[in-house]
Amino acid sequence: MATITGPLSGDAKNTVVEALQGALVDLIDLSLVAKQAHWNLVGSHFRAIHLQLDELTDLARAHMDTVAERCVALGSSPDGRSATVAKSTRLQQPEHGWIEDGKVVATVTDILAGVSKRMYERIRATEEADPVTQDLFITIAQDIDKQHWMFQAQR
Amino acid sequence: MATITGPLSGDAKNTVVEALQGALVDLIDLSLVAKQAHWNLVGSHFRAIHLQLDELTDLARAHMDTVAERCVALGSSPDGRSATVAKSTRLQQPEHGWIEDGKVVATVTDILAGVSKRMYERIRATEEADPVTQDLFITIAQDIDKQHWMFQAQR
Amino acid sequence: MATITGPLSGDAKNTVVEALQGALVDLIDLSLVAKQAHWNLVGSHFRAIHLQLDELTDLARAHMDTVAERCVALGSSPDGRSATVAKSTRLQQPEHGWIEDGKVVATVTDILAGVSKRMYERIRATEEADPVTQDLFITIAQDIDKQHWMFQAQR
Amino acid sequence: MATITGPLSGDAKNTVVEALQGALVDLIDLSLVAKQAHWNLVGSHFRAIHLQLDELTDLARAHMDTVAERCVALGSSPDGRSATVAKSTRLQQPEHGWIEDGKVVATVTDILAGVSKRMYERIRATEEADPVTQDLFITIAQDIDKQHWMFQAQR
Amino acid sequence: MATITGPLSGDAKNTVVEALQGALVDLIDLSLVAKQAHWNLVGSHFRAIHLQLDELTDLARAHMDTVAERCVALGSSPDGRSATVAKSTRLQQPEHGWIEDGKVVATVTDILAGVSKRMYERIRATEEADPVTQDLFITIAQDIDKQHWMFQAQR
Amino acid sequence: MATITGPLSGDAKNTVVEALQGALVDLIDLSLVAKQAHWNLVGSHFRAIHLQLDELTDLARAHMDTVAERCVALGSSPDGRSATVAKSTRLQQPEHGWIEDGKVVATVTDILAGVSKRMYERIRATEEADPVTQDLFITIAQDIDKQHWMFQAQR
Amino acid sequence: MATITGPLSGDAKNTVVEALQGALVDLIDLSLVAKQAHWNLVGSHFRAIHLQLDELTDLARAHMDTVAERCVALGSSPDGRSATVAKSTRLQQPEHGWIEDGKVVATVTDILAGVSKRMYERIRATEEADPVTQDLFITIAQDIDKQHWMFQAQR
Amino acid sequence: MATITGPLSGDAKNTVVEALQGALVDLIDLSLVAKQAHWNLVGSHFRAIHLQLDELTDLARAHMDTVAERCVALGSSPDGRSATVAKSTRLQQPEHGWIEDGKVVATVTDILAGVSKRMYERIRATEEADPVTQDLFITIAQDIDKQHWMFQAQR
Amino acid sequence: MATITGPLSGDAKNTVVEALQGALVDLIDLSLVAKQAHWNLVGSHFRAIHLQLDELTDLARAHMDTVAERCVALGSSPDGRSATVAKSTRLQQPEHGWIEDGKVVATVTDILAGVSKRMYERIRATEEADPVTQDLFITIAQDIDKQHWMFQAQR
Amino acid sequence: MATITGPLSGDAKNTVVEALQGALVDLIDLSLVAKQAHWNLVGSHFRAIHLQLDELTDLARAHMDTVAERCVALGSSPDGRSATVAKSTRLQQPEHGWIEDGKVVATVTDILAGVSKRMYERIRATEEADPVTQDLFITIAQDIDKQHWMFQAQR
Amino acid sequence: MATITGPLSGDAKNTVVEALQGALVDLIDLSLVAKQAHWNLVGSHFRAIHLQLDELTDLARAHMDTVAERCVALGSSPDGRSATVAKSTRLQQPEHGWIEDGKVVATVTDILAGVSKRMYERIRATEEADPVTQDLFITIAQDIDKQHWMFQAQR
Amino acid sequence: MATITGPLSGDAKNTVVEALQGALVDLIDLSLVAKQAHWNLVGSHFRAIHLQLDELTDLARAHMDTVAERCVALGSSPDGRSATVAKSTRLQQPEHGWIEDGKVVATVTDILAGVSKRMYERIRATEEADPVTQDLFITIAQDIDKQHWMFQAQR
Repeated sequence: MATITGPLSGDAKNTVVEALQGALVDLIDLSLVAKQAHWNLVGSHFRAIHLQLDELTDLARAHMDTVAERCVALGSSPDGRSATVAKSTRLQQPEHGWIEDGKVVATVTDILAGVSKRMYERIRATEEADPVTQDLFITIAQDIDKQHWMFQAQR
Repeated sequence: MATITGPLSGDAKNTVVEALQGALVDLIDLSLVAKQAHWNLVGSHFRAIHLQLDELTDLARAHMDTVAERCVALGSSPDGRSATVAKSTRLQQPEHGWIEDGKVVATVTDILAGVSKRMYERIRATEEADPVTQDLFITIAQDIDKQHWMFQAQR
Repeated sequence: MATITGPLSGDAKNTVVEALQGALVDLIDLSLVAKQAHWNLVGSHFRAIHLQLDELTDLARAHMDTVAERCVALGSSPDGRSATVAKSTRLQQPEHGWIEDGKVVATVTDILAGVSKRMYERIRATEEADPVTQDLFITIAQDIDKQHWMFQAQR
Repeated sequence: MATITGPLSGDAKNTVVEALQGALVDLIDLSLVAKQAHWNLVGSHFRAIHLQLDELTDLARAHMDTVAERCVALGSSPDGRSATVAKSTRLQQPEHGWIEDGKVVATVTDILAGVSKRMYERIRATEEADPVTQDLFITIAQDIDKQHWMFQAQR
Repeated sequence: MATITGPLSGDAKNTVVEALQGALVDLIDLSLVAKQAHWNLVGSHFRAIHLQLDELTDLARAHMDTVAERCVALGSSPDGRSATVAKSTRLQQPEHGWIEDGKVVATVTDILAGVSKRMYERIRATEEADPVTQDLFITIAQDIDKQHWMFQAQR
Repeated sequence: MATITGPLSGDAKNTVVEALQGALVDLIDLSLVAKQAHWNLVGSHFRAIHLQLDELTDLARAHMDTVAERCVALGSSPDGRSATVAKSTRLQQPEHGWIEDGKVVATVTDILAGVSKRMYERIRATEEADPVTQDLFITIAQDIDKQHWMFQAQR
Repeated sequence: MATITGPLSGDAKNTVVEALQGALVDLIDLSLVAKQAHWNLVGSHFRAIHLQLDELTDLARAHMDTVAERCVALGSSPDGRSATVAKSTRLQQPEHGWIEDGKVVATVTDILAGVSKRMYERIRATEEADPVTQDLFITIAQDIDKQHWMFQAQR
Repeated sequence: MATITGPLSGDAKNTVVEALQGALVDLIDLSLVAKQAHWNLVGSHFRAIHLQLDELTDLARAHMDTVAERCVALGSSPDGRSATVAKSTRLQQPEHGWIEDGKVVATVTDILAGVSKRMYERIRATEEADPVTQDLFITIAQDIDKQHWMFQAQR
Repeated sequence: MATITGPLSGDAKNTVVEALQGALVDLIDLSLVAKQAHWNLVGSHFRAIHLQLDELTDLARAHMDTVAERCVALGSSPDGRSATVAKSTRLQQPEHGWIEDGKVVATVTDILAGVSKRMYERIRATEEADPVTQDLFITIAQDIDKQHWMFQAQR
Repeated sequence: MATITGPLSGDAKNTVVEALQGALVDLIDLSLVAKQAHWNLVGSHFRAIHLQLDELTDLARAHMDTVAERCVALGSSPDGRSATVAKSTRLQQPEHGWIEDGKVVATVTDILAGVSKRMYERIRATEEADPVTQDLFITIAQDIDKQHWMFQAQR
Repeated sequence: MATITGPLSGDAKNTVVEALQGALVDLIDLSLVAKQAHWNLVGSHFRAIHLQLDELTDLARAHMDTVAERCVALGSSPDGRSATVAKSTRLQQPEHGWIEDGKVVATVTDILAGVSKRMYERIRATEEADPVTQDLFITIAQDIDKQHWMFQAQR
Repeated sequence: MATITGPLSGDAKNTVVEALQGALVDLIDLSLVAKQAHWNLVGSHFRAIHLQLDELTDLARAHMDTVAERCVALGSSPDGRSATVAKSTRLQQPEHGWIEDGKVVATVTDILAGVSKRMYERIRATEEADPVTQDLFITIAQDIDKQHWMFQAQR
């Protein structure tokens, strides 16, 4: 079977791959949580938030692909299976059932703050080891921060 | 808090909602499994299967939205959270790590056969209760069967 | 003058044509009521509802064409003239003048519930007589139910 | 409840609003009559006229929106409900049932001549009161006259 | 050599596959007959009918693909070779040479009536055996009936 | 150096050029104020107003170009520099810092009422001197009035 | 043979039709002169002017169609034949052969000044008789003045 | 002043340039005659022929550009001025005024036959001298012949 | 009934028409054979060949239209009916049933070699009689040769 | 009132926000200066520079939005009002009136050199404090440097 | 290893393949020289020539692909490696460093004249051997001659 | 002659320019090698690799432009002439003639590993001197690594 090799090795590779796997779980679960809220949302601000949650899903899906494919390009196998996501996610999980708009805004704001915080940690962690991966996290952090502001602004 | 009501009630509603929730888990996990294989694939047929798995992901994502939104329109809250998917999925899970192309084709073929089988059960289960939901399952089954053939054909 | 003939005749044709003519009036008046609310809307949720009412108008216009053309294809002349719509519509009519956003949401929710109910009756009524027409009603019911949910969710 | 105010007041406003409401009814009923003919048309020129009637519907729908929204911008509530259209329309109504192509051409030509005539009256009526509204009627008159020629030319 | 298996077996599969093979021949030959008329047409209505025949060809080509691929997805090999089409087609064949527009309209109207009739038989034949295939025939029948009306209307 | 000449001269030219320069300042500052509010907005209606302010910016940018280029075509040099805009603008300036959604709606409504009023003065001022420039102001007034209504409606 | 009638008659119609026929000849010959210069141009500014002349041709072609069709809609037959254009054109004709870029700019500037002047005469001539036609000339004058400026600016 | 030189010289160049200039006049006048008929057309087949004449105009305009630019590329100045077209055209000129559809079809058929005939002469004339120019005439002849058939077919 | 005449007559016409009719049958059957293989294909290279066969079908369909319409433009009626294709085709027919990918590649390579060979004969046959038709065959031969290479390359 | 918080605080936040506010003023005034030159430009290179200045405006507008929204996402309110821009801009202001092309090129080249210099200072200033904001300045600097080269190259 | 065979053999094949390899080197090096000038250009006509050189690059890249793939389709392996291009190119090479616009125009004009001359030799060389390849050279020569004129015209 | 100056000088400029020139040669030759393999490829995986090589060519062409233009923006003249590329390329050159698919995959994988390695050296080399250029290399490295993985995966 073909083995994939990439430009890194040793500790540098381990550090970067760990950061990428963490980001992958963050982003897959962000896409699932955003969809869950997109479907279960109620309240007078329904339409605005319903649409914005789909933009968030699209953004999470696009970045999860970039992150996983960077992991592969470094020669390490990413793990995005549902069991892995469920057991390693650090996102606050919404309750089952309908969720009022104000609560969705508050919850997503908090979730995005957490994802942002971890992305900055990953930016720092990968600075020495791999500026290419770091650049991906910088781009993702910018998008997450922007979403964080926009959810926050409508509280 | 607003409550959502729809055209069904009683047993009919319970039957249909249960089928929709089952389909939702099938489709979310199908999208995750297809992505997992898309990233971890190796072998001389890499490019063809890599691209086809993305078509499968797109298809699963489009149908999961329709299914969840039908569930909402019937007045029942769908559950697409990672923990729910992980514990209730009926899809065979891929091993962690690289997967050879032949194994991907075989695994995805089997997974699609399982999803197809459950969709036909849902078509039968909802025939009396809700022809609108049944029509969604019919459309999904057609797409799943087509994908099943195309993976099968390249074994 | 050319006469149009189609695949049905007798009672089957009468049943189906009556259902189609009823649906045609529902959909034309739905497009007019949605536009009326689109123009006369006031309130802090103006923009979201203004835009959603245009989506509803587009949906009603697309389906009215399909319904009328199915009627013609069965060899019966559809009647979509304003006098016919005005006198046979079963939609609750909005008062003249400005309408507050909350009231628009409530009114449109009720109207959509009524249209949905009649579509399910038409689905049942045409099941034996013409599965092709029934399939059109199934598609329309799915769209109406989805709109019904989305208006309902923002009450 | 919010009240809408605009740049006009007094007689000027009354004159302009009356012209806009008249144009709104003309354009809504023109869209309904064009669709009625689009569906009920028979004759060897079917396809050409069927397509042209859809262009006429699109044109009427686009202008009705502009006219109603100008009315709102002036602070007056437009009325485009089916009952209002049915009782105040000045368009010649087609008979129920199939209509031969030559008759459609003749009828639509006459209807367009009537709409054009009223648009010129509105152009004159609003010249002093509101050049902005007048400019809308000028644009509509140009389109109506063009359609009038094209239907007339194929008699 | 890979063998293709699908969700049906036994009599159900035989019934459905036979209906699909019949529809495939109908649709391939419809595309050839429409092109033949598209090229050999003469008469003052040339342009309208020439264009409409191309729409008919496009429609036949799109549906033939869906029908053949459903057949494959059920595990049966479709046969769309010219010899098979020529010997099993049930469409009335146009004479060789130029065809006047009125005759084209009459002939295509008759051909479409025949195809429609057989599609309704296939809808009935597959109802029990395979609602997914039945749904394809329902969609095709709707399109064929619409074309039938439009050719008929211009007689 | 080339000098630009146009169709007007003398008083007519002076009148028209003055009106165009006034409109240019109105429109440039409208684009800046709309962006300022777009960025500094907070409140539960954030998303709807955030998006609408961008439509307002686009509209102001498109019209500023037309107005400046008409000025040039008449042989007079337009002045759209920041110092000129800052010292001659007649738009109410927002305070520095975050602005709540209700306040944004009220402020923009007032600003648009002022711009509209000045556009009608320019329509009157240029009627004799240059119907071409007047027609530009008529078009702009229609758009400004429409935006004015839509902000007003959501108070 | 069908005769075309329109909203005007008597002197009003004669005045307007004469203006339209004059504009038609101006615009057809403008399109021919612009193409002639587009092909025969030489000089270091070749590319910029070559492209701008094509924009001028497109503009002249679009407006000639509107002008001729307004003439028809008024019930008068427009004349755009080459002999009519050649003998009634008032545009300065370029010499045969290569033309240097500076000369093209100067010539086109002069031609556009002449067309503009005649369009303003037509705006005045049709003000009373037909505000709809006047509005077409206003639009054309704006475009011609803009082109005039841009050619003038690069002298 | 720059002089343009190209790949040909002497008799070859003269022969080819003469053929190109002839084709240029044919194509410019074809575009004018097609527009003249497009505007002055009356009769029950109005719409079909009106649209087809615009396709013919587009085709003539596209080819006139290619022909003139080939002439320039050979170092010879093309002449497309209205006076040149008017005095050297070999196209049958339509009478002034309305033209019935049947007559338009007959006239355009004859005109296209003439243009086609001259294009074949140009194909033969340029075969030795310049296969590149010959290839342009071959492409034009194919398009002209196709238009000739389609007008002819609807007589 | 209208008769179609074109630029050729006598032997030249007969030669060219015969070549066109031969090419028409080649291309129609090529489109049917490519679809047959597209549907019945199995093997590990399924996806690549499945997609390439659809490109081949599109290419055959586009060229068959050009060839048939050239035949008509020459005044001769083309024959593309299924019986004609079936009895006069010179393409090797695939067996009924599933076809392995290697066999498809080999068969299609041979078929394309045959079509290419006949196209070169047609290029030679029409050189004197009709350079316009010859140019069509040259274009088709280039496309067929390219497909031939690409199928051949993957043996 | 909602307060916006972001990932930074203390000195880091102050440093980054100051850099963003400086960049915002640079970019807004760059968009105004570019438009001023776009309108007031004269000279033989008019068209090339006129178009390039619009590309510069688009670029400045796109980056000003990114910069202001990053400022907001960090929890600080950006200030883009005309008075702020006018008093804090560091761009060399063009004189009032027509500007010759050579002077425009020289002035814009100098302005871009200044903006570039300040962007590099901001890249250095934010390196420690916020790599996400630094990355925005890096992207902007690349675009500004490219524009600087292209204006410089045409001096 | 698969061997590629095509429709030619013997001397014909040798002649044609040699011409294709020569054209391939011409076109690859033309794309490189055009890019080199695109980057190193200075002078007041910078923008016009910079853009035109990119059109030339696109044209060269499109034709190089067609030429190389025709070579392959004839069963001969094309050689487009940098060393082959460098040692066999017949294009005049630009000096290293900045190039003034006038010099770029003169150099590219000369280069295009040379490429054109060789394309005509290839047209003659392949006339007997392969009309399909000849037709490719005819198309390329037309494009090269057009570019040659346009560069020449701006000297 | 204009001289181009940029934001860097001295050693920093030398370091960065050298890195950019090295990357330019890498990317130009990568585009040529990818095309060479695209054309000379044989083997059962032909289509997948043929298409992927074109994606690689597009990617190399896009990045070569960015790299060369950054070099110019820094005031240094890039050298992309064929002789320069041929003598300074560090890419492994393919043999002349047909290349089997497995060998292409292995060769391109090795070439991409080499390009990637040199890009990381350039990322390190430019970190101090120019973060803007470094960012370009980071982006290119990400794309090259992704291609490297995808070719590697199909060995």
